[in-house]
Amino acid sequence: MIRAGVVGATGYAGAELVRLLAGHPEVALTILTSRQYAGKPFVDIFPSMKGIVDIVCEAYDAGQAGEKADVVFMALPHKLPMNFVPELLKNGKKIVDLSADFRFSSASAYEAVYQPHTAKDLLEQSVYGLCEVFRERIRNAALIGNPGCYPTSVILPLYPLIKNGFVDAASIIADSKSGVSGAGRSLSLASHYCEVTESFKAYKVDGHRHQPEMNEILSLAAGYPVNITFVPHLLPMSRGMESTIYANLKKSVSYPDIYDCLADFYSGCPFIRLTDNGRPPDTAHVRGTNFCDIGFVLEKGKNRIILMSVIDNLVKGAAGQAVQNMNLMMGLAESAGLNAVPFPI
Amino acid sequence: MIRAGVVGATGYAGAELVRLLAGHPEVALTILTSRQYAGKPFVDIFPSMKGIVDIVCEAYDAGQAGEKADVVFMALPHKLPMNFVPELLKNGKKIVDLSADFRFSSASAYEAVYQPHTAKDLLEQSVYGLCEVFRERIRNAALIGNPGCYPTSVILPLYPLIKNGFVDAASIIADSKSGVSGAGRSLSLASHYCEVTESFKAYKVDGHRHQPEMNEILSLAAGYPVNITFVPHLLPMSRGMESTIYANLKKSVSYPDIYDCLADFYSGCPFIRLTDNGRPPDTAHVRGTNFCDIGFVLEKGKNRIILMSVIDNLVKGAAGQAVQNMNLMMGLAESAGLNAVPFPI
Amino acid sequence: MIRAGVVGATGYAGAELVRLLAGHPEVALTILTSRQYAGKPFVDIFPSMKGIVDIVCEAYDAGQAGEKADVVFMALPHKLPMNFVPELLKNGKKIVDLSADFRFSSASAYEAVYQPHTAKDLLEQSVYGLCEVFRERIRNAALIGNPGCYPTSVILPLYPLIKNGFVDAASIIADSKSGVSGAGRSLSLASHYCEVTESFKAYKVDGHRHQPEMNEILSLAAGYPVNITFVPHLLPMSRGMESTIYANLKKSVSYPDIYDCLADFYSGCPFIRLTDNGRPPDTAHVRGTNFCDIGFVLEKGKNRIILMSVIDNLVKGAAGQAVQNMNLMMGLAESAGLNAVPFPI
Amino acid sequence: MIRAGVVGATGYAGAELVRLLAGHPEVALTILTSRQYAGKPFVDIFPSMKGIVDIVCEAYDAGQAGEKADVVFMALPHKLPMNFVPELLKNGKKIVDLSADFRFSSASAYEAVYQPHTAKDLLEQSVYGLCEVFRERIRNAALIGNPGCYPTSVILPLYPLIKNGFVDAASIIADSKSGVSGAGRSLSLASHYCEVTESFKAYKVDGHRHQPEMNEILSLAAGYPVNITFVPHLLPMSRGMESTIYANLKKSVSYPDIYDCLADFYSGCPFIRLTDNGRPPDTAHVRGTNFCDIGFVLEKGKNRIILMSVIDNLVKGAAGQAVQNMNLMMGLAESAGLNAVPFPI
Repeated sequence: MIRAGVVGATGYAGAELVRLLAGHPEVALTILTSRQYAGKPFVDIFPSMKGIVDIVCEAYDAGQAGEKADVVFMALPHKLPMNFVPELLKNGKKIVDLSADFRFSSASAYEAVYQPHTAKDLLEQSVYGLCEVFRERIRNAALIGNPGCYPTSVILPLYPLIKNGFVDAASIIADSKSGVSGAGRSLSLASHYCEVTESFKAYKVDGHRHQPEMNEILSLAAGYPVNITFVPHLLPMSRGMESTIYANLKKSVSYPDIYDCLADFYSGCPFIRLTDNGRPPDTAHVRGTNFCDIGFVLEKGKNRIILMSVIDNLVKGAAGQAVQNMNLMMGLAESAGLNAVPFPI
Repeated sequence: MIRAGVVGATGYAGAELVRLLAGHPEVALTILTSRQYAGKPFVDIFPSMKGIVDIVCEAYDAGQAGEKADVVFMALPHKLPMNFVPELLKNGKKIVDLSADFRFSSASAYEAVYQPHTAKDLLEQSVYGLCEVFRERIRNAALIGNPGCYPTSVILPLYPLIKNGFVDAASIIADSKSGVSGAGRSLSLASHYCEVTESFKAYKVDGHRHQPEMNEILSLAAGYPVNITFVPHLLPMSRGMESTIYANLKKSVSYPDIYDCLADFYSGCPFIRLTDNGRPPDTAHVRGTNFCDIGFVLEKGKNRIILMSVIDNLVKGAAGQAVQNMNLMMGLAESAGLNAVPFPI
Repeated sequence: MIRAGVVGATGYAGAELVRLLAGHPEVALTILTSRQYAGKPFVDIFPSMKGIVDIVCEAYDAGQAGEKADVVFMALPHKLPMNFVPELLKNGKKIVDLSADFRFSSASAYEAVYQPHTAKDLLEQSVYGLCEVFRERIRNAALIGNPGCYPTSVILPLYPLIKNGFVDAASIIADSKSGVSGAGRSLSLASHYCEVTESFKAYKVDGHRHQPEMNEILSLAAGYPVNITFVPHLLPMSRGMESTIYANLKKSVSYPDIYDCLADFYSGCPFIRLTDNGRPPDTAHVRGTNFCDIGFVLEKGKNRIILMSVIDNLVKGAAGQAVQNMNLMMGLAESAGLNAVPFPI
Repeated sequence: MIRAGVVGATGYAGAELVRLLAGHPEVALTILTSRQYAGKPFVDIFPSMKGIVDIVCEAYDAGQAGEKADVVFMALPHKLPMNFVPELLKNGKKIVDLSADFRFSSASAYEAVYQPHTAKDLLEQSVYGLCEVFRERIRNAALIGNPGCYPTSVILPLYPLIKNGFVDAASIIADSKSGVSGAGRSLSLASHYCEVTESFKAYKVDGHRHQPEMNEILSLAAGYPVNITFVPHLLPMSRGMESTIYANLKKSVSYPDIYDCLADFYSGCPFIRLTDNGRPPDTAHVRGTNFCDIGFVLEKGKNRIILMSVIDNLVKGAAGQAVQNMNLMMGLAESAGLNAVPFPI
C-alpha cells in the first residue's frame, strides 16, 4: 500500500482528495493536515465520511508528513507549497501540488501573475500534470504541478487540434463557466447562497490567472506564442465546468477529420470521452468523475470550429487529476481509484 | 383605461404578461385565453395571483377578443398567431405578437427557419419591436413582432457599435446562456428539475432559430449581410439570460469611446443601464425587471471587445418588452407599468 | 410624503426595506445607514437598484437620523437597537425595530434568551407588530417590535383557532422550514452555496430564540401559558418559509368551521389568503410579496388539524410587515406600497 | 458472478440500480429492459455511463429475463410487477421488487390504497426488505418487497424505540421532505424546474400511500395497531429525504438511554449512523450513499422526543436498499457494491 498524505485536507479540493484516496484500493491515507482544524477529527468537518475516515487533522509539519507518507498532496493556496516542497523532495517524497506554484516552466511567467517564487530551481524538474498530454514525463517525475481547472477544460479539446495544424491558435476564444466549488470553501460574499442562486455573470474578464497557464501549454502545442481570449463565468451550481471554445480552422476539414484527430490522440486514455455526432457534453454527465467529455461542431459556411468540453472542477479539474498523476508516478494503473460508476442524474 | 387581452395566458410568457398588465396603472385586463385551461379561473393555474386577477380563462375567439380588448397580446407558439392576427387587425386592434411570426421583414427569411407563412402581406406593416432601436416606427405601428429573448440580449449591446463603425460585424461570436423558463411551460424531459439542476450544457449549436433573427437586424445596422456565430446554453436557474459577445474592433478605441457611443445611443432609454468600469453585469440584478444591463471590456493587447449583457428572459426578453411596445403604440409613458423596484437579491 | 430612514440598510432585511420604501407612493427615502459601507453609494452594494436609489450610505448618527426622517426602520442585529431607540423616540420619531429588542412585553422574557436589556422602560409602550392581530394598538404606537419570521408564520394560522377554543394549545408542534436569506448576509459556512445546495437539515432543535416569542403571543390567545414544540429547518432556496403545524382539536369540528373561523378573524386583512379546499400553500406563490397563505386539513379519524402557512421570510417575515406597520402608524392604507403583483413563477 | 437484470432500467430508480450494479464487484449486469427505449443503447439515455455500461435496452420478456439473469430487479410502477413476478419465481429467479406490489402482508391492506392484487398467494412468501429489521427473513427469501423511501426514513429511527417500549406509537407525527427525484422521471408539471426551484410545499396531506406501509411495520413493532400522522413535502433539490419525527415518551429517559437503544439495535449494521450529541443529520451527508443517518433530541421539560433521519431517496430509499437485499439473499457481504466513499459536498 502506498502511504498518502493530504496537506490542506479541509478545503474542497483537499476533502475531495480524501474521498478519492480513502476509496483507492492501493492507498492508505496516513496524514491529513489543516491549520484551521488542527486537533479535530476530519469527520467533524465532513460528517459524510463518518465511519470511513478515522484521522485527526494536524498542523503541517514537514517531519511528520515525510515520515508518514510516501506521496504528499498539497491542496493549499499558491505561495504556501513552494515553502514546503523543497524539504519533502529532499527526503525522497513524491509530490502532487494542486496550487499554481509548480505549473509554470519559468519563474518569470509565474511571477508575472502570482508573486516572487522562492523555489525557482525546482521548476525545471516539476512536470505539468496534464496526464493525457505529458504522461511519459509524469511517470518519471517527483514533483507535479497539477493543472488548474479552467486550463484542463480548455487545453484538452484544443491540444491535439493545434498540434496537428487544424486550428489557428491565434484565433482561440474560450468562454468558460464554473460551479461555485471552484472558488473554494473560504468565506466570501461571492459564494453566499443568496448571491449565487438564480445568478449568472462573467468575472475577471480583464485577466484571470489561468489564462497565462493555458497560453504556455497551447504555445507548446503550436510551436509559436499563443495568447488566447478567455472569459470565466460563475454558474449557480456546486460542481461542474464547461468551456465553449471558438477557433478558426487552418484548412478545410470534415467532422470525421476532427473526430479522428481527437480519438487518435486520446486513444488509450481512460478519461477522455468524445460525444456522438457533436452532441454538446453536459456537466451533469461527468459529475463526481474524472472524465472530460468533448463534443464539437463545424459551423456551416464558415471555417470555424466550436468545441465544448465538460469536467467536474473538483475531480478532473483538481483532486481526480492529482490522483491520476499519483497513479502514473507510482506505476499504478492510470485509473486506479478513479473508476466509480457515474450517477445517472 | 386601455383594455388589454392576452391570448395564450397560461404559458410562462403569457402569465408574465398577466403579472405586468394587472399592475399597469393605465390598463384593464379584460380577457385571458387558454386552450388547455378554458373555463378555469386563471388563479387556479397561477395561485400566486389569488385576490388580484379575477378572470376565467376562455378558448380563443376572434370576435370575443376583438370586442373586449383594444390591444391583444399573442403569447402563443409560432404558426398560430399568423392565423389570428389578420382578422384582429382588420377590426382595428393593436397587436403585439410574442412569437416569431411577424419578426422578419421577408417571408422567405421566416420560411427558411420556420414554416410557410400564411399572412405574408402583413410583414410589410409589422414592426420589429426592439423598442430602443425602432421606437419611432413602433409608435405608429399596429402590429409588432416582439423580439426573441436571445436577439434582444445580443442586439442591444451590438447595434450602436456596429452602426457607428466600431466593430467588425463579420467577427461576432455570441455565447449566450438562458434560464429554463425560456423553454416554456410545456412538459419536456429537458425541463425536468432533476435533469437541469447541477447541469450546464450548450444546445442547438448547429443552428438556433434566433440566429437568423439577429442576422437580419445586425445586417441592418452594418449595411451589409452579417452572419454571426451564436451558441445558446441552458442554465440551472429559472429566469435570466446572459450573453458574452466577442467582436473585433475596426479602429483603435478607448473605453470612453465605447461607453459614450452606447450612452449616447441609449440616452433617454429607461431600461438600458451601462455598468461602471466594465463590471460584468449579473442576471440577478435584472431579475423580474425590464432592464438590460450592459458591461464591456477592451482586451489588452488585442483589437477585441468583450461585451456582456443581461436581461430577464421573461421580461425584457418577452412580456416586459411587449408591454413597452404597447406603451409606445398607445402613446403612454414608455416605462408605464414597468417600473417596479428590483429585488436586492 | 413621509420621510423614512433605514438603519442597517445593507443587510438583506435592510435592502428589502429599501426596495419596498423606494417603491412606496407616499414615502421618500431620505437616509440609509451602514457601518460596513459608510461612504459608499447604496447601488454599489446592490447594483440591481441602479438608477432608482441614489443615496450614499452613512454611519449611524442619531442626530442625522432624527433630522432627516419621520420614521426610522431599525434593521440591525438585536442588542444594537436598544441603544439607539430611546433618543429617537424622545425626538418624536416613529420606529419600527426589526430585531427582537422590543418584541417581548417583559425584560425577563427577553433576557432569558438574549442578553441584559438596557431600555426596559420602553417595553411597556412598544407594540408587537403582528398587524393582523394587534392592528389597533399599532395604529397608536410610536415603537414597534417587528415580529420574527418564524413567529409570523406560526402565529397567524394558530391565533384565531386558539382564541376561539378550537385547538389545544398545549399540543402544538410547529415544523418550520426557511430559505437561506433568513440567516442574513453575514458570511458563514452555513450560508455557503456549496453547503446549502442539495442539502436539507433541521437546526437549533434544542432551542431557537423564536420559540419563546411564539409562546408569549400564543399564551395571550389561549389565556394560559403555552409552550409549543418548534423545530426549524434550512431549505436550499433563497426566500420563503413554510410551517406545517400539528395540533389537537378541542371539539369535533368540520372543515367549514375552521375555514370560517379563520376567514372571519382575517376579514378585511389584505395579506391573509386562505387556500381552497385545504390545498397546501406553496412558498413560490408568496415570493416577493407580503402575503401569508394558509391551508389546512382535518386528519381523518383523528381529532388533529394540520395547518400549513407560507410567507416570504424577507417580506411578511421582515421588511414587508415593517412597512405594513409603518402604514398603520402613519394612517396610510394598510397595503400602501405592498401591492405589487406576485410573480407567476 | 451473479447475473442481474433490471426491469424498467430507464426510470430514475432503475438507472440508479444500473449505477450500483455496474460497480458491484460480484455482479454482471446482463439485461436491461425499457418499454419506452427498447432497441436503444442504455448510454443514449444516460450518457454519463458511456464507456461503462454497454447494453441495449430491450422490451420485457419473461423468457429472456429468466434466461439471462439470476436476480431480477423490478423498477416499475406498481401493478406491473405482480404480472411479471409469478413466472420468474416459478423459474427459480430471485426477485427484488421496488414497487409496492409485494410490500404488504395482506392483499386487503394493499388493495385499500392501490388496486386489486392479482398475485395474492405470493404475499405470504414475500418479505418486506427493510434489511436492518428483517435481515434473517430476507436471507431466506426469494421475493422481496423493497420498502418505500418515506417508510424507510420513518421506520428506521422509530422501530427500535417502539419495540423497546420507549415511545408511544399512537403519538407519532412524521413530517417528511423529499427531493424531486422521488417523483420519478415521468413528465409532470410538478417536476418542471421552474415550478420546483425556490418552492417548498406539503402535498397529499390528506393521505399518501406510504402511510399505511409505515403503519403495518410500526404496528408490528408496537404489538398493537398504529396509525401515525404523516405529511410529505417537496424539496427544491434532486436527491435526499429528511424526516423529522415527533413522539411522546412512555417513560422518563435520558439521552444515553435512547442512544444505546438505537446503537444496540443497529449494532453491526453498516448503513446506520447515529450522529454525535443529537446533531441534526443533513441529507447532503448521505447523498449517493446507502446510509441512513439518525439524530435525536429530548425536548426539555416535556416527555417528547424529536427524531431526525436522512437518506438518499434513490439509494437507501430505493436502489441501494434493493442491492442490499440482493446481497443478503445471495449470501454476499451486506455492503458489497455499496461502499463508495461519500462526497464531502
